[in-house]
Parts: sequence; C-alpha cells; structure tokens
Amino acid sequence: MTQFINTKESLVTEAIEGLLATSGGRLTRLDGYPHIKVVFRSDWDKSKVALISGGGSGHEPAHAEFVGAGMLTAAVCGEVFASPSVDAVLAGILAVTGDSGCLLIVKNYTGDRLNFGLAAERARALGLKVEMVVVDDDVALPDLPQARGLAGTLFVHKIAGAIAEDNGSLEMVTDAAKTVISRSASIGMSLDTCTVPGSVKEDRIQLGNAELGLGIHGEAGVEQVTFENAKTAMQMVLQKLEPHMPGGDVVALLNNLGATTPLEMSILANELMHSPYAEKIKFVIGPAPLMTSLDMHGFSVSVMSVDDVHADALTQPVSIPAWPGVQERMPVKISRLPDGLTPVKPIPSSHPATRSTVLAICDMLIEAESSLNTLDAKSGDGDTGSTLATAARSLKESLDRMPLADLTQLMPALGNELSQTMGGSSGVILAIFFNATGDACARGLTIQSALAEGLARVSQVGGAKVGDRTMIDALHPALQALPKGIQAAAAEARTGADATASIIKAKAGRAAYVPEENLIGHNDPGAEAVALVFEGLASST
Amino acid sequence: MTQFINTKESLVTEAIEGLLATSGGRLTRLDGYPHIKVVFRSDWDKSKVALISGGGSGHEPAHAEFVGAGMLTAAVCGEVFASPSVDAVLAGILAVTGDSGCLLIVKNYTGDRLNFGLAAERARALGLKVEMVVVDDDVALPDLPQARGLAGTLFVHKIAGAIAEDNGSLEMVTDAAKTVISRSASIGMSLDTCTVPGSVKEDRIQLGNAELGLGIHGEAGVEQVTFENAKTAMQMVLQKLEPHMPGGDVVALLNNLGATTPLEMSILANELMHSPYAEKIKFVIGPAPLMTSLDMHGFSVSVMSVDDVHADALTQPVSIPAWPGVQERMPVKISRLPDGLTPVKPIPSSHPATRSTVLAICDMLIEAESSLNTLDAKSGDGDTGSTLATAARSLKESLDRMPLADLTQLMPALGNELSQTMGGSSGVILAIFFNATGDACARGLTIQSALAEGLARVSQVGGAKVGDRTMIDALHPALQALPKGIQAAAAEARTGADATASIIKAKAGRAAYVPEENLIGHNDPGAEAVALVFEGLASST
Repeated sequence: MTQFINTKESLVTEAIEGLLATSGGRLTRLDGYPHIKVVFRSDWDKSKVALISGGGSGHEPAHAEFVGAGMLTAAVCGEVFASPSVDAVLAGILAVTGDSGCLLIVKNYTGDRLNFGLAAERARALGLKVEMVVVDDDVALPDLPQARGLAGTLFVHKIAGAIAEDNGSLEMVTDAAKTVISRSASIGMSLDTCTVPGSVKEDRIQLGNAELGLGIHGEAGVEQVTFENAKTAMQMVLQKLEPHMPGGDVVALLNNLGATTPLEMSILANELMHSPYAEKIKFVIGPAPLMTSLDMHGFSVSVMSVDDVHADALTQPVSIPAWPGVQERMPVKISRLPDGLTPVKPIPSSHPATRSTVLAICDMLIEAESSLNTLDAKSGDGDTGSTLATAARSLKESLDRMPLADLTQLMPALGNELSQTMGGSSGVILAIFFNATGDACARGLTIQSALAEGLARVSQVGGAKVGDRTMIDALHPALQALPKGIQAAAAEARTGADATASIIKAKAGRAAYVPEENLIGHNDPGAEAVALVFEGLASST
Repeated sequence: MTQFINTKESLVTEAIEGLLATSGGRLTRLDGYPHIKVVFRSDWDKSKVALISGGGSGHEPAHAEFVGAGMLTAAVCGEVFASPSVDAVLAGILAVTGDSGCLLIVKNYTGDRLNFGLAAERARALGLKVEMVVVDDDVALPDLPQARGLAGTLFVHKIAGAIAEDNGSLEMVTDAAKTVISRSASIGMSLDTCTVPGSVKEDRIQLGNAELGLGIHGEAGVEQVTFENAKTAMQMVLQKLEPHMPGGDVVALLNNLGATTPLEMSILANELMHSPYAEKIKFVIGPAPLMTSLDMHGFSVSVMSVDDVHADALTQPVSIPAWPGVQERMPVKISRLPDGLTPVKPIPSSHPATRSTVLAICDMLIEAESSLNTLDAKSGDGDTGSTLATAARSLKESLDRMPLADLTQLMPALGNELSQTMGGSSGVILAIFFNATGDACARGLTIQSALAEGLARVSQVGGAKVGDRTMIDALHPALQALPKGIQAAAAEARTGADATASIIKAKAGRAAYVPEENLIGHNDPGAEAVALVFEGLASST
C-alpha cells in the first residue's frame, strides 16, 4: 500500500516536525533525534505537577497532540507501535519535572511499563518525585489480568491534567488517575486491520466480518463476528461495556480508530446515543480520532462513571485542537418547518391564445421525445427527450389550474410546475428561467425583454453562456431576434442549435465530461429542443 | 467494502442525528426528514446576516459541523454527493434569515448552483434579502471556466462568518466572500479513489500511482503521476499553487481528504512548512479533515493571500470542534537535552569475593547459552540463552570499571550495564531489579532483603507475579530462602523453575501469547536460568 511517507525510518521524527511546525510555537521538542523524541509545552515553567505520557507512535493524536495546558505536559514518542527507550522517557522526565514532581501515564504494554518504569527509577535516583500509573481499560478479555491500555487513557489525560493545572499535588493527581483508571472500560471493533508503514497489511478479517475486542497495534481481536450493520455493531460493543456502566453519570467516549469516515462515526454516534444504554450516559466525547491505530477502519467506545469532581475536571475547556470537548447528552433539538415552503397557488384563469400556444409547445416536445433521446444518447444518458415529454404531458394536464390570463402569475406557476415534474437540472433551470421572467414581467417589462432577463439569470446561476453547448446556444439568439417576429427567432434558434454540433469543447453541463469525438457532428439536445419549439411555433403562425 | 452504516437510504439522516445527539444541544435541525436536512445554530436569533452553505454529503465535517457562532448559521445537506433539493435550501433560508438577509455559500457544481439559485429566487419572491456566492477555488484545470469548489470554501465560511458575527452588513459579508473566493486556490492529490456507500469502489488508481488535481466526488484527477514519496507529492501540489501565492501573507490550509492517517498528514505538513514556498506562508490551518471525500486516501492544499482585515477575521477564535484554528508559521522550537541523562560513572573498586561470584555467574550463563536457547525455542524465538550470554560476556569485560567493593554502588552499576548490553525487556527488567536493590541497600537493608525488594519492584512495574511462568517463579522462592543459605535457595529455585513446566496458562511476558501445547512440559527459560545460577553458586560453595 502506498502511503504519504518518505522513509519508514524517518517517518515519526518527520511527523513530529510537522506537528510542531503547525503548532504556532505552542509545542517544543528536545534536541534528541532520532532516539529521543519528546514533545512538551512551550509555556511550561515546572511550577505544577508534570504529566507525561507516551508510547509507540501510530496512535495520533495520542499522545503528542494532547500536550497543552490542562492535559499533558510532555509526550515521549516511540517509533510506530514500539515503546520509547528508557533514555527517551528519562529525558522527558528531566525536561519537565520540577519540585512538584511528575506523573507518568503509561498504557499497559510490557515495553512501555518497563521503559517508563526504569526511567522512573533513574529519575528517582536523581532526586525527583516520580509516580507512575498504568492504564488497563480494555475489557475484551475479562479474565486477563494484563488488560491493555486503550482510549480510556484519554480520561486520565484530561482529568489528571485538569487537577494538575489547578495546582493539585502529585498525590492528588496520582490518586485521581488511579480512580479514573479503575472506573474506565473500553472495547473496540474493526472491519479491517491496519497498515504498518513499510509492511504488507495482514489480510485477517474477511470481507463481511468484523473483529470485536481488538487491540490498537493490529493484534487479533477476541472474536470475529459477522458484520450486519452499524446498529448491531454498536450493540455488541455496548453489551461488553454494560457491566462497567453502573449509575447514571457515565461519560462515553467514541473513538475513531483511524480510517472510519466522519459519516460512519456519526452513524455510530447516533446508535450510541439512542441505544438502550443511552439513559446511563450523562456526557459524551467525540466521535473523534483520539487513540487511533494507523489506518484501522474501526471504532472503540470507552466508558467511565464520573463523580462531580471528575466531571468538573473532564469538562474544563482546554485550547488543544485535538481534544473535541465534552458534551452533555440531551434530546436532539428539532424545529418545525418554516412557513412559505409551499408556493402560493395561483388563481386559475383562461386565455385561449396562450393556452393553444402552450399546448402546441407541449405537443411538439412529446412528438420529439424519441429523436431527442437519440441525440442525447450521443453525449449523455439518452433521456432528454423523455424528460421533456414527461414534463410536457404533466403540463398539459395542469393547464386548467394555470393563471393563463396573467403572464406575471403564469411564469412562476410554469416554473414551479416544471421544477416539480421534471427531474434533475433541466427542471430547475426552466424554473429559474420562468421565475425570473415572471419577476421581470411584474416589474413592467415586455414579455420579450422579460424572457431575455430570465435567460440572463439562468446564465448567471447556472454559469453557462453562449458557446458552451447548451440550450442557451439556441435560446439566446432566438430571444434576441424575437422582437423581429417568431420567424426570425426560429431561424436564429435553428442556426444556434446547428452550431452546437461543431462545439467540441463543452464547457458547462454534463457534456463537459464527454470526449470530443462523441460530441462532434451532433446538436446539443437541449438546443435542438429549443429550435424545434421555435420552428414549430413559427410554422403554425 | 463493509462500512459502519445501516442502510444506504438512511445514512445521511442517521449521521445528522448522531451529530446533533453529540452536540450538547448546540445544533438544531428542521423537522423535514428525509428530504429536508437542515442543521442550524440553536442560539440563532436572526439579528445578524445569516450564512448558509451546504451541498452533497460525504464531505464531513463540511458543512454541518461548521455551524456555530462565527462560521455558518445553517447547513443544508443533500444525500451523499448529491445536491440538496430546492425545497431543502429554501427551508434553510426561511428558517434562519431575518431582516439582515442571508448569504448562500455554494460550491461550484451545477446541481448546487441551480438548486441554491432557484431557492434564492423563491426566497426573494417572499421578500427576503438573499445573496449567493459560488466558490471555485480548484486550480487543477486552469483553463476550465467552471473550476470546482474545494476546501477553499472553508476560508469563506470562516472569514465571512467572522464578519457576519461582528454585525457586518449583507453587502460587507458578500463582498468579503467574493474577495476571498477570488484569492483562493486549491488542489488535491490522492493515492486511491473513495468508496461511495452501497457502490463498488472504482479501481482507477494503480498501486504506486497518485492522482493529481482530483475532485471531491471521486471524479478522475487531471493526471496520474508516479508516486515517489511525501516530499515530491507536496512539491507537485505546491507547484500548481505557486501562481496563487503572491506575497508573504499567504494562509495555507492542509486538508485530509478522508482516510489519510494523522501520521501521514503530519509528514505532509512538515513538507509544506519546509518547502521552498514556505517563506510565503504566514498562517497555517490544519492538518485536519475539513472538506473530505468519504474515505479518500489523499490530501489537498488551499492557499489564499490575506490582508489584515481578513487575517483578523480568519484568526478570530470560534467554539466549533471541527475547526482546528489558525496558527502562525514560526520556526520549530527545539530545547537542548536535559542534564542527568548519562548515568554518573561509579568509581571502580576491587573486591575479590564479589568479583569471583559475578564471574562465576557470567560463566554459567555463557555455558548455558545453547540449552537455554533450545528451551526458549519451545515458547519464544529461541534467543534467551544468547541474550543472557551476550550480556554476561560484556559484563565480564566491564568488571574492572565496576565499584565491586560497594554493593550500594555496584547494584545500579550492574543495572545500567545490563540495560545497555541486553536487548529487549530482559535488560530493562534486570536493570529495574538491580537499581531498586541498590536503592534498598542505600537505605541500609541487608543484601538479602534488598534483593527481595528489587524483585518486588520488578513485579510491580512488569506486572508479573509468581505463577505467571516467568523468571520470578524461580527467583522469588530462591530469595525467600536465601537467609537460610545458598543451598536452600538453590533448591527452591529448582523447584520453582521445574514447576513452570506445568504452568500452561502464561499470564505475563511473551509466553502469554503461545498456545498451551507449546508450553506444557518445558521449563520457562528465564526461570531455568535463575535455577542454573543458584545451583552453580551452591555447588561452588
């Protein structure tokens, strides 16, 4: 799989440089590349308890993007899915720890525990106050005493971070972190594994299956299940979490594991917030990528029950772009539709001349159905004739409801009728044409001038002009000539329509995407329809 | 491709419900499902100019997630990649437009132009002040008069939004939007097409190729290029944008087209911020998903030159989680490594008895190399023996540098030596063991008690305890028995090591992942090494 990297060896340091370069100076790094990759707050003065987390890379935004006032003081980054070295962790501790001491927040993986643990020993030997907590929120394997650390780690970052920022002592911060960890539970589901840069993606999850209870390093999940839909997927996950959702003050965190689209995440959020367990949820975080696993197409849910103190700490705002904030669960707000959506029905009136003109145009279009379809098939999907004929048939049936005696009313009425009975762009274009023409009539313009103004509006909104191989190529010259009579208009329409056969570079509408050899020699069907109508009207006059 | 959806038909309304349910009441929708999908600010009082955008779905967070004070007033959502209907747009206009009027921000696609255009006509007919701007920031096809609307749309949302929020008139807001559009340019590159829900993914881009100048609806790009790496990819994109980066006050927006990982995006950000064009960049937005194309594995860059007024509007903070904020470009901040990383070298001293004990242990481990490897091959990668032997050889060579006469100094010195010469977890575990033992010696404990405390720390940090099939199964009973003499300790170590052969459910370390049939009947190699050492010491006493 191709990826936007340069070399596998340099990818983590380059990514950290990119993060720093776009941080506006908010973040600083230690001068220890390539082995020591430590990111910390530029505004840090060591006056409070420092919070340090980290681990293998590939889980962005965790952890470096959560460095900032109210969350982490520093992040120690390893290579992809590999623990940072003892020296790197020690460098992080030494760089940010003052008299108040520091808390290491470590996810429960052997490498991280050991390397952070040894760094803590070495820092203590240098006289620093260092505490360490291990996050083990994974509930995929309830019997495993070594549960993994997953997105529940974010609860620790945020709550311990707020308490530290509020000048909490190392003991207070550590106690809070331990309490949060003991109350956190997470489980994930994915439709595919992840692609480790430079490695071939493991083809473990069959199409149509999902893995439940997987880790964030591409480890196999606890079970493969048949994937039905978003609803059952969320149900499976929530069933596993239910034992960890005791009271009513649960905070739920919906995490994107990497490559799940925002649309899917919102659908999963909808299932979460309307599940049978939703009543227990008081706060929600996300959906957002918080603890990812490279490009994994999956999600995880973390839950934790919160008391008032932790809720305060959790909801404290921070200026960290990757932190999506905490929202209270409340019913979806729905507002009734506004008035004015339904067009006012015009009062029908009769006008034999107008009626017969409209009828004649309709009949011409119905008669031309198949020839226009054939023409359209050259450059499109061959339905221009049918679209126009269908609209014409509907219009004939609605003539008795039309205000035929009043052009100012008739024009928008025609527009509204056509926009409802014609599918796609054509109906809208004609509606704009007739609405704007009606507007112009209302302002006292002659029908000829009003029609020209309607066309100008179509051109403006639709962006097509003469020469773009659209119906405008026939309609524009015809309307220009109309003051000289219908014969002149028909001749101009025909000339314009025929000229479209040599416009090989369509610039608007669907034909813009058609190869030129499919266009040459064939009139644009819209322009042809206009020409046929004008010719028909001319011959019957 | 499996996706986290329920049905193709309901996916957009469900996603909007999910967005609203996790918005904490910030967003409201109109009661017009399924056809009218309009999301607007719950706190809107119609006192200012309303900003309305929208279009097909599949571009999240655009546009619904940008609804909020200082950006959009409302978003009108169509189905995936399909324009919303005229009625939907009109409903949006009517719902949020007061006496100050509204501006429609439309991306340059025929369907959107027409539907928003006709809705504007109908709203004007109802007496509302409605203006419309069309965003056409795509520079992939410089000759195409109908350039598409891409992520540059976000510049319009943010700048026009700030001006409207600041009580700007409709004319001011519209003028600003037009100016922003005229100065914006965008182009994207992708390694793969996107997966439209319910459709089979088009296999257009060959592995190793990239498409330059593609649209956000899976349309083919202007050209397929050979993909080299992140650097050349960013260069190609920036070359196309260069004509649109005139002065020094350019803002660059780095957009994730969907499924690009945060790591890749940060690498691309690094290339952007250190490219030859970077000097022209004053502000940067992202990297972040802003205008996506479902799960497209690509990115786009948008640039715009800003004057002071627009810069002010752009950098105005907003409480909209999807908006990543604007950062000023500045050099990456690098801080020198802290002191204390290099362990203080102990002062060598001699102690013949200790020297001979250490030498004896080293020789035993060197001798046991191949038998321990064989044992390890049953449950691991067969290198325990070599790891220990290599460390033992190094240790022998370093004995002259060791403070052999002072156990308090010797213990951490041994730990530091082993953590440098032994790879992987084992070195770290032994380092923690010896460091913590040294700590205990320093506090005046007997060597026996100090060793027991060292082991307790290993257990705490590493998470393994007796019965977990690790070296602790031999070391713990041996240290318990040590006060009774080395013979007793050796006997306990042997009993403990042999007992590991029947521990089929390893709970810590690598063996936790090995099937039980590979474990039964074989001693854990770490425990066996401990037993061999104690037995050796006992027999030589």
